[in-house]
Amino acid sequence: MFSSGLHSCLSFFLIFLLALPPVTAVWPAPKNFTKGTSVLYIHQAIQITYNGEPLSYTHGYWPRELTSKEVVQAGVSRTLGGIFDSKFVPWKLHKPGSKFEPDLNQGQTWLSKLEIVQTAEDKPSAFKPLAGEVDESYSLTVSAEGAAKLTAVSSIGILRGLETFSQLFYQHSAGTFWYTPYAPVEVEDAPLFPHRGVLMDTARHFFPVEDILRTIDAMSWNKLNRLHIHVTDSQSWPLVLPSMPEVSEKGAYHPSQTYSPTDIDNIQKYGAARGVEVYFEIDMPGHIGVVALSHPELIVAYNELPYHWWCAQPPCGAFKMNSSEVDAFLEKLFDDLLPRVAPYAAYFHTGGDELNKNDSMLDDGVRSNSSEVLQPLLQKFIDAQHARVRKAGLAPVVWEEIPLEWNVTIGDDTVVQAWLGGESVKKLTEKGLKVIDSNYNYWYLDCGRGQWLNWDNGAAFQLGFPFNDWCNPTKSWRLVYSHDPVAGLTPEQAALVLGGEVAMWSETIDSTNFDTLLWPRASAAGEVLWSGRIDPVTGQNRSQLEAAPRLNEFRERMVLRGVRSSPVQMTFCTQGSPEECEYAP
Amino acid sequence: MFSSGLHSCLSFFLIFLLALPPVTAVWPAPKNFTKGTSVLYIHQAIQITYNGEPLSYTHGYWPRELTSKEVVQAGVSRTLGGIFDSKFVPWKLHKPGSKFEPDLNQGQTWLSKLEIVQTAEDKPSAFKPLAGEVDESYSLTVSAEGAAKLTAVSSIGILRGLETFSQLFYQHSAGTFWYTPYAPVEVEDAPLFPHRGVLMDTARHFFPVEDILRTIDAMSWNKLNRLHIHVTDSQSWPLVLPSMPEVSEKGAYHPSQTYSPTDIDNIQKYGAARGVEVYFEIDMPGHIGVVALSHPELIVAYNELPYHWWCAQPPCGAFKMNSSEVDAFLEKLFDDLLPRVAPYAAYFHTGGDELNKNDSMLDDGVRSNSSEVLQPLLQKFIDAQHARVRKAGLAPVVWEEIPLEWNVTIGDDTVVQAWLGGESVKKLTEKGLKVIDSNYNYWYLDCGRGQWLNWDNGAAFQLGFPFNDWCNPTKSWRLVYSHDPVAGLTPEQAALVLGGEVAMWSETIDSTNFDTLLWPRASAAGEVLWSGRIDPVTGQNRSQLEAAPRLNEFRERMVLRGVRSSPVQMTFCTQGSPEECEYAP
Repeated sequence: MFSSGLHSCLSFFLIFLLALPPVTAVWPAPKNFTKGTSVLYIHQAIQITYNGEPLSYTHGYWPRELTSKEVVQAGVSRTLGGIFDSKFVPWKLHKPGSKFEPDLNQGQTWLSKLEIVQTAEDKPSAFKPLAGEVDESYSLTVSAEGAAKLTAVSSIGILRGLETFSQLFYQHSAGTFWYTPYAPVEVEDAPLFPHRGVLMDTARHFFPVEDILRTIDAMSWNKLNRLHIHVTDSQSWPLVLPSMPEVSEKGAYHPSQTYSPTDIDNIQKYGAARGVEVYFEIDMPGHIGVVALSHPELIVAYNELPYHWWCAQPPCGAFKMNSSEVDAFLEKLFDDLLPRVAPYAAYFHTGGDELNKNDSMLDDGVRSNSSEVLQPLLQKFIDAQHARVRKAGLAPVVWEEIPLEWNVTIGDDTVVQAWLGGESVKKLTEKGLKVIDSNYNYWYLDCGRGQWLNWDNGAAFQLGFPFNDWCNPTKSWRLVYSHDPVAGLTPEQAALVLGGEVAMWSETIDSTNFDTLLWPRASAAGEVLWSGRIDPVTGQNRSQLEAAPRLNEFRERMVLRGVRSSPVQMTFCTQGSPEECEYAP
Repeated sequence: MFSSGLHSCLSFFLIFLLALPPVTAVWPAPKNFTKGTSVLYIHQAIQITYNGEPLSYTHGYWPRELTSKEVVQAGVSRTLGGIFDSKFVPWKLHKPGSKFEPDLNQGQTWLSKLEIVQTAEDKPSAFKPLAGEVDESYSLTVSAEGAAKLTAVSSIGILRGLETFSQLFYQHSAGTFWYTPYAPVEVEDAPLFPHRGVLMDTARHFFPVEDILRTIDAMSWNKLNRLHIHVTDSQSWPLVLPSMPEVSEKGAYHPSQTYSPTDIDNIQKYGAARGVEVYFEIDMPGHIGVVALSHPELIVAYNELPYHWWCAQPPCGAFKMNSSEVDAFLEKLFDDLLPRVAPYAAYFHTGGDELNKNDSMLDDGVRSNSSEVLQPLLQKFIDAQHARVRKAGLAPVVWEEIPLEWNVTIGDDTVVQAWLGGESVKKLTEKGLKVIDSNYNYWYLDCGRGQWLNWDNGAAFQLGFPFNDWCNPTKSWRLVYSHDPVAGLTPEQAALVLGGEVAMWSETIDSTNFDTLLWPRASAAGEVLWSGRIDPVTGQNRSQLEAAPRLNEFRERMVLRGVRSSPVQMTFCTQGSPEECEYAP
């Protein structure tokens, strides 16, 4: 009887939960979030304090230096700019003709102050943390009477909380009124994974600096915190090296398609001020063919055809595996580059994916494709490069083939980026290795849009038709959202998963379509990484029914702030209840 | 021996052909095109005559009325604007560091004049032709000495020739010099199919007028000539009807998401002046649920759940099939709308796809889902609506289900839009029906990007995973380009195929991603429709190896003219020979 009574009670409770209107505001979902139904208005002269000192909303504020106060001041200004500039009247989230706005004639209760309290001084690593080094948690309260308080251990935690704060507000259609209908609000929040990233590939297609900065902005709105720039590949070398200018002079697609040291510095500082650590990858010893254009003596198999004998995509080209000239080149490269990037990053990625053993058949110093011959050479190569990375104060990152396919021993500090799916993450964590997950079946956002190679008529046509790419289908936000990097792992293994990255390999992506392909799908991964695939309250996987309305809303915010995110659902669905656009079997 | 000698000779000839540099300029491929290697420069004061009368380049010229001379004057101004404004320095089409530009120090031979000759007066139907009513052929010569001549039967043919003309020119990187490296040029050109279209869906997502106008511009660059606007559907009714304002007042997503009569007029005139006929579809008797918001008495099954019992996607809703009220509503609707659209269009589309028989179970006037009961009602319904269309001077268009699934008899003037692939076009043409082809396996450009419905956890999740949509995969430009609407037909059947349309159903497409998904894929279909899938010179299917360099170039032109076309290939491939990015089995 008792059990039955409890069951009834639980059923009632569940029905009650389901009958609630969907939570709209806030993406990614905070750990704990309660809200009310009181309206508070906000104006541009709101009193703001940071640890007791007044702090004013200054439109377009640019941090003068990378200090806690400057970062918070700039974050506050961006947050309020986001509220006041983006003109987000949320009619797309309500049925046509419905009255969803507060009645201005009822008078206004104003949000009079936002009190920001940082409870500890930022550590020196705050703006270039290793995974877990910075505490991103925060708590936020907004009272129905009009007082808001944001508390965090670090200035990065404050930035995360400010983003949540900004998502509570809408513009009134009558004009210059902005309000939240959710007071009182209480939020306790912290990320599940410390590494939440996006991979940009600037080698297949070059991206202007402004695209990268805009992406950093959107990442910060999503509480994503790592931008991994795969800056070179066999196709092009956009990175200017003052010590070896010939590499980009010969290797860039065009003089306009380069990143100067100033560009790199600006990109990293822009990220650091937003809690987005920008780190770089120079993929090697494969995926480096372009170096042959300036240093042909270092490279084997450059642009050999048919490419698939020598590499995964044209043009082929790999470093010679047993060459003192290659070593000298890399010494010079790292001496040039690493001291410049180390002030703003904790990591440097040395690549290591898809190395084709056949390449070394063409290498006079090796003339073999035997693993037994090549493995020790690769071990030595990796050891040498990682020593250079460490000397610069950085932790190395490698692709999963280095430990799993080549059995190369790597240091305890080294992070492995998994991409091949299946058991990769399990195998890596079983070895005690730290992992970031980019499982291509879920988080390769370039996939499923068709071949980028030319297929002639005849046999090739028959083989290629219907010209799907290798990782078909397109990963919809629903598929992206379904992926849990720690599914099937033991707690010990799961603890080694630092997070993940969505990847935007750019064979068929450039400035024109980048935003539409990255967003809102990276947002879906972002919620998995910040909030977890599993809702801690229900213990169940998060449902699309709960997520879709919030993602619809957040997508509108991204578009209005200048990022061309694709739509989540058609307007009929964003305006209705999620059940109206549900597939019910 | 002779045979062997001939074989050698042919082999030599083929090798010679393959060794030629790829033809770059001009998409879609002209019927006959020869070019040389002399350089001609063009300046803004070039002398232009139209049937002997001088005609000046006037930046941004807007045709004052829809007359031949005004249309040509505006076309000339757009064409020269395209050359001079778009700053197309084609470094993306040449190896880095290569010298591909003429040496300015060698002096300039100028293109001194462009003589435009229209050999016949435009017929009254020139700006709203039925398929085949307007002659779009043209011939163009540019002598090495600097005289250009464009001849066509109609002003629309002149517009087509001007587009080809504009694609001969590049900007010099030194600044204010523009040149063609291809003189002398001779072009003889005419389209294979008279109906070359794009379907826009303004009901799942609304598109601002500017998106439609920009699409018309890009279509005209592609020599596409029909914009089919699927203006209403069960999700929303953006079309303002002055005689029944309540329909859009209740049915639009928002007051801002509507097309006024002035908008419709502007869209059609804009198209007509560019040789793009804009015609509208009001889909019925299914796909019309939204009318229930203003006229509930006319509709059955509005927003019934689970939707898949009643229709193909939420919200359901169909006209009652045996209702004098429905008939009166449509009388009023057509009396309002058709006289307004008829001056600029030859067609009106009455829809007719995916009518679900179950709907009529809920219809008090029918209460049956039997084809025997419903077929005569549908025949009567179609007869009545098509009579109204004809009365307005328009030809009806219907989806293929009307004749093929429902066996409804339609008039000789009626065009059938096929979409279900397989044998549809064959079956329709066997019945002697005129067809436009939108085979979803090739030309539905929204496909393959994932489910747009919400799938809850549990059974739905298992069923939906990995959340592919019904028409996966994405149709890459290579797949789009592989489709021949007349493949497998007899010459008699093929003669009934008027052309085709690519479709951009907008469940997951809005302003943000529309351009990137439409282009360059619609360009690929555009070449099939203008030039043919089969190259008349070789008698073989056109190869991606020949097409890719031209499409790469044309895509750059589209981007520089303001349309966010996705890239065709990565820059390494656009800069190299097509063989460097070929898959060779």
